[in-house]
Amino acid sequence: MSDVVSMTELIERKRDGGTLTREELAGIVAGYTAGDIPDYQMSAFLMAVLFRGMAPAELAAWTEAMLHSGDVLDCSGIPAPKVDKHSTGGVGDKVSIPLAPIVASCGIALPMVSGRGLGHTGGTLDKLESIPGFRTALTPAEFLAQLAEVGVVLAGQSERLVPADRAIYALRDASGTVPSIPLIASSIMAKKLAEDLDGLVLDVKVGSGAFMRDTASARRLARTMVELGAARGTRVVALLTDMDQPLGAEVGNANEIAESLAVLRGGGPPDLVALVLRLGEEMLLLGGVAADREEARDRIEETIGSGRALATFRRVVAAQGGDPAVVDDPALLPLATGIHHVTSRRAGFVHRCDAATVGRAAVRLGAGRERKEDRVDPGVGITVHAKRGDRVASGDLLATVRFSDPDRLEACRALLEEAWVVDVDPPRPRPLFLGEVR
Amino acid sequence: MSDVVSMTELIERKRDGGTLTREELAGIVAGYTAGDIPDYQMSAFLMAVLFRGMAPAELAAWTEAMLHSGDVLDCSGIPAPKVDKHSTGGVGDKVSIPLAPIVASCGIALPMVSGRGLGHTGGTLDKLESIPGFRTALTPAEFLAQLAEVGVVLAGQSERLVPADRAIYALRDASGTVPSIPLIASSIMAKKLAEDLDGLVLDVKVGSGAFMRDTASARRLARTMVELGAARGTRVVALLTDMDQPLGAEVGNANEIAESLAVLRGGGPPDLVALVLRLGEEMLLLGGVAADREEARDRIEETIGSGRALATFRRVVAAQGGDPAVVDDPALLPLATGIHHVTSRRAGFVHRCDAATVGRAAVRLGAGRERKEDRVDPGVGITVHAKRGDRVASGDLLATVRFSDPDRLEACRALLEEAWVVDVDPPRPRPLFLGEVR
Repeated sequence: MSDVVSMTELIERKRDGGTLTREELAGIVAGYTAGDIPDYQMSAFLMAVLFRGMAPAELAAWTEAMLHSGDVLDCSGIPAPKVDKHSTGGVGDKVSIPLAPIVASCGIALPMVSGRGLGHTGGTLDKLESIPGFRTALTPAEFLAQLAEVGVVLAGQSERLVPADRAIYALRDASGTVPSIPLIASSIMAKKLAEDLDGLVLDVKVGSGAFMRDTASARRLARTMVELGAARGTRVVALLTDMDQPLGAEVGNANEIAESLAVLRGGGPPDLVALVLRLGEEMLLLGGVAADREEARDRIEETIGSGRALATFRRVVAAQGGDPAVVDDPALLPLATGIHHVTSRRAGFVHRCDAATVGRAAVRLGAGRERKEDRVDPGVGITVHAKRGDRVASGDLLATVRFSDPDRLEACRALLEEAWVVDVDPPRPRPLFLGEVR
Repeated sequence: MSDVVSMTELIERKRDGGTLTREELAGIVAGYTAGDIPDYQMSAFLMAVLFRGMAPAELAAWTEAMLHSGDVLDCSGIPAPKVDKHSTGGVGDKVSIPLAPIVASCGIALPMVSGRGLGHTGGTLDKLESIPGFRTALTPAEFLAQLAEVGVVLAGQSERLVPADRAIYALRDASGTVPSIPLIASSIMAKKLAEDLDGLVLDVKVGSGAFMRDTASARRLARTMVELGAARGTRVVALLTDMDQPLGAEVGNANEIAESLAVLRGGGPPDLVALVLRLGEEMLLLGGVAADREEARDRIEETIGSGRALATFRRVVAAQGGDPAVVDDPALLPLATGIHHVTSRRAGFVHRCDAATVGRAAVRLGAGRERKEDRVDPGVGITVHAKRGDRVASGDLLATVRFSDPDRLEACRALLEEAWVVDVDPPRPRPLFLGEVR
């Protein structure tokens, strides 16, 4: 694969709709990761994959090669069942933060490797780092030790875990080759399968704020990932859930931690709570720690009601260097002090609170990144007060913006003005749960 | 366009089937040529163009930007009409070598910029350089001086002529993005329009040995180029001609010069002669030096019969540093001395003498390049004795191979064994002229 002619031939074969062998695909992944295949050939290959797709056997081979491009976690020393959750990303999606300690409190081990926000979507790592002192960069030894002691780790991808994905993702981001179902599926599944899991629950987002805009493509992505898991003997369940509007009320970083703490205390907005409960049930069932859905629900509600889930999160924060006092006093979070209100200019029902627009508004405010090198301002964010189906009077609050830089507020406001659609008649309801693949 | 985000957006728009503006396309060409846009973004963009195509206005803007990426010839000091011919490339296609002095002898100025062989196709420059001393790298001043004095120049592309094409072509070659009609058309037309022409005749090859395998795609390419010429006010005529089998009998370099000299002396194989005459007629008509096809044909035959065309070629060779004695004594050409005969194993009619296979066999022999850095052996080559429709007995000669390295002969033989198909019944005839676009 160090042979330039040969890589050109592989690009041409994929471009013309042909099939590559397991060895050829492994050669591309290894050759690119080692620097033998130049970026310009890889980006052309990825664009050809975007147009031509990959056959199931090609995708399995590609994912396997990515997975073995670096270290693979060895969780064999952890007796508890290992089950993780992954979301394809959205606006206000802080589900992992309450879900992980809840599920860990029920006897599941969660070696959860999360990502950062990019574009209009937020990232779990950025949110966690708004807790003063919280470290998301752990060594493999720290990672495994915490998993054994606390039962849950909320960390970033180590340099040695799936380095091929790190390299390929950066290239995809800069070469217009992100929205390809096989490339998305392999990127997610290589990282998750490298966690040495017994089961995986996928939350595939659908709507304006998601990679997948419609249910049909979300279902294709979900099925692709479930099949990739099955090919390796890992049970995978995928839920399709709405991302046409933000999840919960808070969009930002510190404010999303505060909302997560509310869920762990038994409160929180209904859509966020419903999603945490449903994903938790699936994880308990996959892990075999509950016999049926009812028992799973009962166990989850018990860990919340008893304060055990909150206590587990306190231990996670402490183990990862964060200030555990935040868990009991969210006022210690570094929330920005500038406040701006967005109100409705007309009376009626909310037809749309557009996730992508709210997400982009939050990025303008400083809560996310337009480029990888951008710094996130942890304290800024948006609180959404009116969502689809809500009735509003003229002058009613639609959103509260917490800002630190007035110039950035202006850029954010301009977008937020367009995020809501209010009309006289009530809209058709759109459910949170849009389907499942298992 | 130095902005990475912006180039990513342009890639995404093309990928999704959108249209780019004249300014955006000019920005890409200029940004890439200046090194501001990295190879990996350009190769992804080119692959997206390969799949999505370009609208006519996009292609005109792209070609215009390429054309103005460097110097443009100024032929305003040459009173004669400037008409050039370009072939999309094939096996045994030495047409330019006899055609240029013939047409120049009729009062047309030919500022002909040619290319080198790559893959299974040969290149006019490589063939000319088999004449001892012949220089194809001329300065712009030498180029214009010779055009004024001799009326014809047979040279390579200078560093300063369409540098964008030089950079983009090298990237396309290594990234599987060569066979795209808009990219092929713009590459050819940017270079030809930079020659400041009054007219251009295109020989678009169709068949196994050509870029375009079928008449429909060849016609699309031809129409695209004719329209690009029209958009700039340059009259362009395109002929579609067969390249399913080699043109003429000789495939190589020195042996193709010998065959070209035979044409200039009034001999040569009938397909090659027919194509030279027909292209010449079109050039004379475009240049306005003949009133109709008959007059054009008469003038061409006169320049050959009188020896004026051969004399013009002698002047070209002398002007470009070559040994003019070669023109009168082809035995001075450096022909390889090893001889190998390929014979038919059965009796019947030749159904196929596959151009691509013969071309690849010639490359294995050393007559062409598998990679740009390969050196061409000028003396080796293949003489084709039996072509489509010819009757052969078992043991009859199909080809004579001139070789210098016995190992390379072996690689060549293995391919040549597969190049001919002989069957009992005569094949359906396939004409040399397959269509025209004007």
